[in-house]
Amino acid sequence: MKVKVIVTPKETVLDPQGAAVREAMQHLGFTAARDVRIGRYLEIEVEGDAAAQEPKLRELCHDLLSNPVIEDYRLEMPNEKS
Amino acid sequence: MKVKVIVTPKETVLDPQGAAVREAMQHLGFTAARDVRIGRYLEIEVEGDAAAQEPKLRELCHDLLSNPVIEDYRLEMPNEKS
Repeated sequence: MKVKVIVTPKETVLDPQGAAVREAMQHLGFTAARDVRIGRYLEIEVEGDAAAQEPKLRELCHDLLSNPVIEDYRLEMPNEKS
Repeated sequence: MKVKVIVTPKETVLDPQGAAVREAMQHLGFTAARDVRIGRYLEIEVEGDAAAQEPKLRELCHDLLSNPVIEDYRLEMPNEKS
């Protein structure tokens, strides 16, 4: 089953990449773009029961997939078994 | 209102970054990781009515935010007005 992880820069942290994209959007005529923030999106195909592996997945999100000093992560478990 | 864009590598395209993360996960004892694919996640704060700006947003997704040769994008519009 497929688990999704979204890693985003914390609200209080500057996101220069997002600012650059906002500038580019405005340059291309999309002046309605007020703010852009860019993060990472991971799809992890997990063998067996993902719910049982949630604690280990959270540990990996914290230690490997994000930098907790400047980033937040969101772990989305699948709702139904596949 | 907030619009979300998720850019992922196409199914048929190799994702070396994802493969490296899968290897690292297995190295850290999470052997249930079968496949990892990594993409980008963007949150765009749009002024005014986002629905009216959807065509322009799609154009930007195609031209600026993704590389259509190797990537797919998914544009998620807000359901309710904020």
